[in-house]
Amino acid sequence: MSLIVQKFGGTSVGTVERIESVADKVAEFRRQGHDMVVAVSAMSGETNRLIALANEIEEQPTPREMDVLVSTGEQVTIALLSMALNKRGCPARSYTGSQVRILTDSSHNKARIKEIDERNIRSDLDAGRVVVVAGFQGADEENNITTLGRGGSDTTAVALAAALKADECQIYTDVDGVYTTDPRVVDSARRLDRITFEEMLEMASLGSKVLQIRAVEFAGKYNVPLRVLHSFQDGPGTLISLEENTAMESPAISGIAFTRDEAKLSIRGVPDTPGIAYRILGPISDANIEVDVIVQNASADGTNDITFTVHRNDMAKAESILQATAKELGAREVTTDSKIAKVSIVGVGMRSHAGVASKMFKTLAEVNTNIELITTSEIKISVVIDEKFLELVVRALHSAFDLDDQSADAS
Amino acid sequence: MSLIVQKFGGTSVGTVERIESVADKVAEFRRQGHDMVVAVSAMSGETNRLIALANEIEEQPTPREMDVLVSTGEQVTIALLSMALNKRGCPARSYTGSQVRILTDSSHNKARIKEIDERNIRSDLDAGRVVVVAGFQGADEENNITTLGRGGSDTTAVALAAALKADECQIYTDVDGVYTTDPRVVDSARRLDRITFEEMLEMASLGSKVLQIRAVEFAGKYNVPLRVLHSFQDGPGTLISLEENTAMESPAISGIAFTRDEAKLSIRGVPDTPGIAYRILGPISDANIEVDVIVQNASADGTNDITFTVHRNDMAKAESILQATAKELGAREVTTDSKIAKVSIVGVGMRSHAGVASKMFKTLAEVNTNIELITTSEIKISVVIDEKFLELVVRALHSAFDLDDQSADAS
Repeated sequence: MSLIVQKFGGTSVGTVERIESVADKVAEFRRQGHDMVVAVSAMSGETNRLIALANEIEEQPTPREMDVLVSTGEQVTIALLSMALNKRGCPARSYTGSQVRILTDSSHNKARIKEIDERNIRSDLDAGRVVVVAGFQGADEENNITTLGRGGSDTTAVALAAALKADECQIYTDVDGVYTTDPRVVDSARRLDRITFEEMLEMASLGSKVLQIRAVEFAGKYNVPLRVLHSFQDGPGTLISLEENTAMESPAISGIAFTRDEAKLSIRGVPDTPGIAYRILGPISDANIEVDVIVQNASADGTNDITFTVHRNDMAKAESILQATAKELGAREVTTDSKIAKVSIVGVGMRSHAGVASKMFKTLAEVNTNIELITTSEIKISVVIDEKFLELVVRALHSAFDLDDQSADAS
Repeated sequence: MSLIVQKFGGTSVGTVERIESVADKVAEFRRQGHDMVVAVSAMSGETNRLIALANEIEEQPTPREMDVLVSTGEQVTIALLSMALNKRGCPARSYTGSQVRILTDSSHNKARIKEIDERNIRSDLDAGRVVVVAGFQGADEENNITTLGRGGSDTTAVALAAALKADECQIYTDVDGVYTTDPRVVDSARRLDRITFEEMLEMASLGSKVLQIRAVEFAGKYNVPLRVLHSFQDGPGTLISLEENTAMESPAISGIAFTRDEAKLSIRGVPDTPGIAYRILGPISDANIEVDVIVQNASADGTNDITFTVHRNDMAKAESILQATAKELGAREVTTDSKIAKVSIVGVGMRSHAGVASKMFKTLAEVNTNIELITTSEIKISVVIDEKFLELVVRALHSAFDLDDQSADAS
């Protein structure tokens, strides 16, 4: 029998009826003999309701009090789920973050977990109880209530699993696993049975919003096997772990991620001198704009072109900063393009497979798509292209890298 | 400068707008230099909303989890009020019952306060902060969340005031003080400037539902001066304390309480033997029916009549029990009457004023009202009458005992 930590998000516990379904599922695992710890979010809509109340008072409410306020959301869910489990003859006990205790630093609204005291949970598990823990929250050294910020419930579940040395941490979501790419774009996208933490991080940060990056990092660091499953459908989901797929014919790449959220900015004809990249990108970063891809090309004429991408919402702000910099540096011109998309192929297999990059570029050439930017990491190759070619490119790559689900109809 | 504990109930904090009004009031007290501790209830409607969620799952939800659930109601209020105070440049910090810590026994849903650790509050007060405490809740030795049961927020405020040796505990309500009688019945009813704990207990238990009995008892025990005030109107309210009104012409009685909630049951012609009252009232009490007035009259013929009153809702149940007893004892008859009212005059002054009782009976005779039952305590005389005479009798007594507000129009 195993020790399993499960996490159910806001949609999975959005109504009393859904909480009853979650209780059914948890009770069934318990009946099979597993030790069960369950982390839950606030019922969907509840956190927004609470934030709206606070905003009626002030736009920037006291961070400490904001945490006192929003932490009630999960507290409601743990109580209701524990009641529902007890009703099923499955003894359960709820814990707030402070009760566990999940010790965090004092950064209200975005606290980080420092330590989990697992003694209370252990003694409940030993007594045969299911332990239901409020996700997203903790308490600092002075017992001030803190919250972990966006996606914090995933992090709570993984941290609990790490502290308890759980056999598996199951994250229940509205998808039945991690896919080779977005099924809305490629009909024949296939659910992956397993994927490594590294790959998942590249997939997540590139737009496959199944799991919070922070939780995946945490799971990787403590080697907690993480499984993504559908809340309301049965199925094996996708296991995210340290181990690579060791099947004989393991594929070179695991998936294709893409995003339409970015915009591209270029500054042309700046002097090719040391420190020029810093002088251009420093002011962007000072304005709290995150930069993704950066490409620099020195020209033969002794000047330089620098191109980078930012979130599309930040483009206007970034452009006005860049125009000011261009004036200072005497740059030739500034150009922007928001009609771009970024496509990435991801896979630990590409380390051992030669020619992955050239196969990717060949595929793009075959569908007549111009590549505007290229960046690479050890397990990922990304290209920026005209956004109108996005679907075409993703489908072509999916097929070229043998990711298509053979059981699905060819599209 | 004083240390003042204030309590605001659910209606006073029922909307964000009202919470802002409360913040105005508290901030004004703080500006005057007072050290302020504020206990608050859940926003009106919130506790019922939470209970309804629980009842969707089960009619009798786990008591421990019920407390985890409903305690979120006050937690929301303390956060919002603290935000509103901070917005006004009045530094404030919120505390849940567990954070204070308000140590209670483990009787979930009806816990009793054992001890209050006032150190956190003191250090905040010393730092110039207003302390906002969640009413109605605490935590037991194992840090399980507990709630104090109905009216618990008043009790929290009084207990805080006792622990902090506050100069005054102010309970804000929807009335501007304690009145000589119900102003809806007697136009010339007068707000009392002060009243003793003893009198308030007799008034409260007799139907003037301004304060929770338990809070008044608590305040009396620890000699915490208690002031009842209106949440949204200025005024001195009514001070409830140990001291009697020491004015030269202090009145014999302070107020007139009454209730229409009771019903009268009589069993006639039972043998006049020792233990007969117990044989009749034991089964009633075993059925968890509370008995108020009890009168026994031995007749000359060696039989006995016993009459008692119960809450009107319990009359049918009490009658069927009484019928069974009557059969066993061979009683002559059982009669019931739900068309009764109980009127009580209350006042510590009656200890030193002779003739209060006879003046009361004379007044009833003057308005041709028959007295069905009489009971007396040291500071109270109650009569049970036909309910149709209630208003008439209350007005006559109010005038006879010089309670009328001379500034009001004669009615």
